[in-house]
Amino acid sequence: MEKATIIFQPSGRRGKITKGKNILDAARELGENIESLCGGKGSCGKCKVLIAEGNYPKYGVTSHLKNLSRWRKKEANFINTTQRKKGLRLACCAEIKNDALVFVPEESRASKQIVSKRPRLLPVDCDPVVKKYDLIMDPPSAGDARGDLERILSALNVQYGLKDLGCDIDNLYSCDIDVLRHLPIRIREQNWHVTVSVWMNQEIIRILPGSVPDTYGIAIDIGTTTVVASLVHLKSARILDTQYIMNPQVKYGEDVISRINYHLRNKEGLRQMSMDMGEALNRMIEAMLRSTWPEDTHWTETAETSDYSDVQKQRGKTDGEFLCLVPEDIEDAVIVGNTIMHHILLQLDPRHVALSPFPPVVQKSLNIKARNLGISICPSAYVHFLPNEAGFVGADNVAVLTAEAPYKSDQIQLIIDIGTNGELVLGNRERLLSTSCATGPVFEGAEITYGMRAAPGAIERIAVDPETHEVTYKVVGNDAWSNYVKTGELKTHGICGSGIMDTLAELYRTGIINKSGAFQKKQISSRYRVNPETRLKEFVIAWADETTIGRDITITQKDIRHIQLGKAAIYAGCKLLMREWGTDRVDVIKIAGGFGLHIDPVKTLIMGMIPDCDPKQIVPVGNAAGTGALITLLNREKRSESDWVAQMVEHVDLALLQEFNDEFIEALHIPHKKDSFPHLEPILPPEILFQK
Amino acid sequence: MEKATIIFQPSGRRGKITKGKNILDAARELGENIESLCGGKGSCGKCKVLIAEGNYPKYGVTSHLKNLSRWRKKEANFINTTQRKKGLRLACCAEIKNDALVFVPEESRASKQIVSKRPRLLPVDCDPVVKKYDLIMDPPSAGDARGDLERILSALNVQYGLKDLGCDIDNLYSCDIDVLRHLPIRIREQNWHVTVSVWMNQEIIRILPGSVPDTYGIAIDIGTTTVVASLVHLKSARILDTQYIMNPQVKYGEDVISRINYHLRNKEGLRQMSMDMGEALNRMIEAMLRSTWPEDTHWTETAETSDYSDVQKQRGKTDGEFLCLVPEDIEDAVIVGNTIMHHILLQLDPRHVALSPFPPVVQKSLNIKARNLGISICPSAYVHFLPNEAGFVGADNVAVLTAEAPYKSDQIQLIIDIGTNGELVLGNRERLLSTSCATGPVFEGAEITYGMRAAPGAIERIAVDPETHEVTYKVVGNDAWSNYVKTGELKTHGICGSGIMDTLAELYRTGIINKSGAFQKKQISSRYRVNPETRLKEFVIAWADETTIGRDITITQKDIRHIQLGKAAIYAGCKLLMREWGTDRVDVIKIAGGFGLHIDPVKTLIMGMIPDCDPKQIVPVGNAAGTGALITLLNREKRSESDWVAQMVEHVDLALLQEFNDEFIEALHIPHKKDSFPHLEPILPPEILFQK
Repeated sequence: MEKATIIFQPSGRRGKITKGKNILDAARELGENIESLCGGKGSCGKCKVLIAEGNYPKYGVTSHLKNLSRWRKKEANFINTTQRKKGLRLACCAEIKNDALVFVPEESRASKQIVSKRPRLLPVDCDPVVKKYDLIMDPPSAGDARGDLERILSALNVQYGLKDLGCDIDNLYSCDIDVLRHLPIRIREQNWHVTVSVWMNQEIIRILPGSVPDTYGIAIDIGTTTVVASLVHLKSARILDTQYIMNPQVKYGEDVISRINYHLRNKEGLRQMSMDMGEALNRMIEAMLRSTWPEDTHWTETAETSDYSDVQKQRGKTDGEFLCLVPEDIEDAVIVGNTIMHHILLQLDPRHVALSPFPPVVQKSLNIKARNLGISICPSAYVHFLPNEAGFVGADNVAVLTAEAPYKSDQIQLIIDIGTNGELVLGNRERLLSTSCATGPVFEGAEITYGMRAAPGAIERIAVDPETHEVTYKVVGNDAWSNYVKTGELKTHGICGSGIMDTLAELYRTGIINKSGAFQKKQISSRYRVNPETRLKEFVIAWADETTIGRDITITQKDIRHIQLGKAAIYAGCKLLMREWGTDRVDVIKIAGGFGLHIDPVKTLIMGMIPDCDPKQIVPVGNAAGTGALITLLNREKRSESDWVAQMVEHVDLALLQEFNDEFIEALHIPHKKDSFPHLEPILPPEILFQK
Repeated sequence: MEKATIIFQPSGRRGKITKGKNILDAARELGENIESLCGGKGSCGKCKVLIAEGNYPKYGVTSHLKNLSRWRKKEANFINTTQRKKGLRLACCAEIKNDALVFVPEESRASKQIVSKRPRLLPVDCDPVVKKYDLIMDPPSAGDARGDLERILSALNVQYGLKDLGCDIDNLYSCDIDVLRHLPIRIREQNWHVTVSVWMNQEIIRILPGSVPDTYGIAIDIGTTTVVASLVHLKSARILDTQYIMNPQVKYGEDVISRINYHLRNKEGLRQMSMDMGEALNRMIEAMLRSTWPEDTHWTETAETSDYSDVQKQRGKTDGEFLCLVPEDIEDAVIVGNTIMHHILLQLDPRHVALSPFPPVVQKSLNIKARNLGISICPSAYVHFLPNEAGFVGADNVAVLTAEAPYKSDQIQLIIDIGTNGELVLGNRERLLSTSCATGPVFEGAEITYGMRAAPGAIERIAVDPETHEVTYKVVGNDAWSNYVKTGELKTHGICGSGIMDTLAELYRTGIINKSGAFQKKQISSRYRVNPETRLKEFVIAWADETTIGRDITITQKDIRHIQLGKAAIYAGCKLLMREWGTDRVDVIKIAGGFGLHIDPVKTLIMGMIPDCDPKQIVPVGNAAGTGALITLLNREKRSESDWVAQMVEHVDLALLQEFNDEFIEALHIPHKKDSFPHLEPILPPEILFQK
């Protein structure tokens, strides 16, 4: 297959790419981060790139627009004629026919850090399911020629009282076959002194020569849009590293329904999506492991050796300063995700989860050998999948429940997890109800003209002056409001979910939009206009000179409608859940997801996204699904608790409730009077308070 | 890689073979059966072939001796100068440089049928570990949207009382992941009517649409030289087919020690030998499955479909006359073999099994998913490996014990299993001792000039006239003795183990050899001679015109020495085991292995291979290891019994006993006086009696 040279600027990344692939593919291959929310379908417009024209002897290429495939109609939705003439293209639409020098504008560069997805670690006793036992044995002798495994099993029994393990002949799972394959060498390497890792007091999953007391695990939260993984020291609960990536399946569709459709239309679709996720997880694992090595190490060579003593030597070289972990060192893993993400990764046919009455293939928790999933950790380790509550309320919600434990509380708690779907749980120690509602990915910044994820440079808070309609705002990653800094210093380049919600509230409070969400007919604001190109009514939040993208950041009438649909779905869901439970009030509202960390609880309340509640009792709980994954990774009891709660929680299918449509339409409006807003001050967002 | 055309005659098999491979490799690739006991090391001389010289337009080749690699020195051990000039080569020594037309002489053709390896089926209750449950369920509804698996688990509980299975949240192994992958389709295919296969009341390993009551399994006996596999209907114990092949690892060495050495010398040796066995097992499984299809079926296409309903349609087409089984239909497997065969297949490092005190890697029985072994049966089925007693007494001996159950007897039984190694068990319900002794493969026909396996045409019995020294004999596969048939009618082409033993006895009885095994100095017999080529003393058993190989079949002084070494090893072992046990007599002697089926018990006794015993109490038990594999496949209780007996039997290491060498040297001689032989009559061999 013929290849062409592709060079990205300003990063300078370059490489040979097979002709026919597009620029977005090339970026992925070469490690260039280009933003893409739709995953290459040409529907988000986030992946704009500039193709250089001319001969660049310095770089050894001649780059032309005509070296790429023809202009596609859908590109016109995001790129106007002037921009097109300058050489702007959507990276996902431009296929490579020959060499090209590609400039990636600031706005198209994917931000790496997604602070808000970081799982919180609640206090939890460390009692992992994998435990290590240090054994010193006598070597075989003429009078004692037992098998190597039998020697270990009896030592475990005599030295630690582990009687259940394999000494009973009916216990069939005493040792993984892979462990047996390494056993003869490892048991002899340090003179019959070994450390044995035992899973659930049932099965030996690893044997190492000598004393190796530390155990490591990973907790993975697979969202429809984002995947987060943490590497954890299981004895101390210390998080060694956390990695975030966009779900690679986004290229098959933004939401779960389009992924199911991809599976239905393609024979190999399910396998393909599963493999993509497997590869992505392996890349994250590699990155986390690399973080435990000195930077200049040839990681791959050492980490892939089958001889563990090489690894130990390497560790010795760094004077113990670096842990130098290899895949085999990860002896436990917990994965959470919604039912569809769970089914796709496990290659379980998810089609019926999308059809009423939405039965999943399996609800109970699963333990699957890492080697059978192709996940690069210790091959004999088990990957634990938390149970699914129901078709549309998955293991991620079980993780949230296990983290927040409303079933231990007298107070009635409402837990709202806002991701690509909204998942709601209501109840206390007496009764728990759960449901899901389709919010769409609006709160993750999709479907919004200047929407973006809660990454540095994203507007997360705004305030509009009721008289002048002047705007001040704050971006993620900077404590200062825009009126305290020099123009351009905030490197603003979009609005994230909480900023979108804030904007709606401010536009309403200042009379720019009305109760139904429409721009008031008589607009005095200089920031209000009808966009000459798109013909949409819009309000300018940041002027071009304040941004890194060189254009005004606005919110349009269409954007406002999207936000209204999302918030109404959540509100109607909450109301119906409360009715089912038999309460007209809730004591505590916990908002999970990155969104929750950045919002102003009062505004959210007043804009009618959540039911009435004391604003002090609205608590952001961050990535609670990720937290639940961590907790169940660290504590065996909590893992059983998650099995129990998944069976105990009652699932409510909103679609079956006749009142849903009425409630939903009602909830589209802004419910409160605009003068019920408290006086607005530039307060610090809760995330900052929280992290201190 | 360049290829050459190779044509075999008289079979007519032809094909393109990569240059550099040898004729034996080519035969294997093209499905031509050429005998080879040493597996291509050039040490057995069984693979002689004739290379045609000249142009053969009919076949489209020009064949020359020079189209093959140069003559190798070791070929001269088996091919004399005249034969060499005619174009005779050893197939394993002749590498292909260009096209060749190869004639395979009768004597070099491997016989397919090895009757003596057929496992016997003792009466046993059918109580397999995999059981099938027929379930009819209600489909999901708005009020019952449980997962598909949960629906099945609760139906198993309600309809069959299988409570332990997965309903308890701590039961982690309720359903194989592969079953879950097929579940949504199969559960809906016949309107929520399925048949569920449950392994050990613990785990669902298969789900089929509709009623499918029959279950099938395979029992495999992996010998150092021969592999036998049977396909069994698990509800009726009916054996549907049995396949026999030579162990493909023979090419790495005839005995277990040379295979261990191959592993020690080659980094990938262990994996390679394991893969070879895996492939061989898969070929046997395919052959057994094919036997359940009409001959003209495109088996591969249908059998490899993932859609089971295609298979069911195919079955319908044959009016149920054929079972039309596919790999997925095999839901259970039991494998027995000696410790080294066990370790090699599982890729467990066998090196320490060869070094005193010979500890194996593992003794206990193992259950390993077929998919993790690469064995083409139902991928979620378990393959059960019987336990190893000790380093040199493996799972094959446990199988023999389970089949013969001496631990249920008051009589003191001596069980002798003669294969490439000799394994001995002595005892009764009070105490059981086991040991192994190195007999070498002499009783399987190796190391003997005209030795062969117990296949049709092999001399299994002889009688020598004390006066005339004339010989009459009987071959495997024919009831008639040679003096009752026309010359050449028996198609004699070698001597098998029992014939070799018989020959020794007859030569001694008639005074041709003396007590020490040497030919008497004064020989009057016209059948005695010194071979002019080899310079070895020899005795002619069959003249060239009686054979299909066109040469005299003889027994040489060297052959006699080999037999003496083998029988002495067994005798010394038996004696020392009796001394350890504290008995000077045994009540019953059971001789396992093909050898046992063909021998004359009295002669064996008198020649000093086994201890004194009432000749009526010497019982051939055939392939008892294979029988044990069958029994443990069919009966769950017997499987537990085999775990128990492996722990209970005491292993004696002969090498540790000082008396061994004395006993061994003593046993080389023939212990009884020649006139203590009973009058010899041509009696029917016990195998015939037994099979009726």
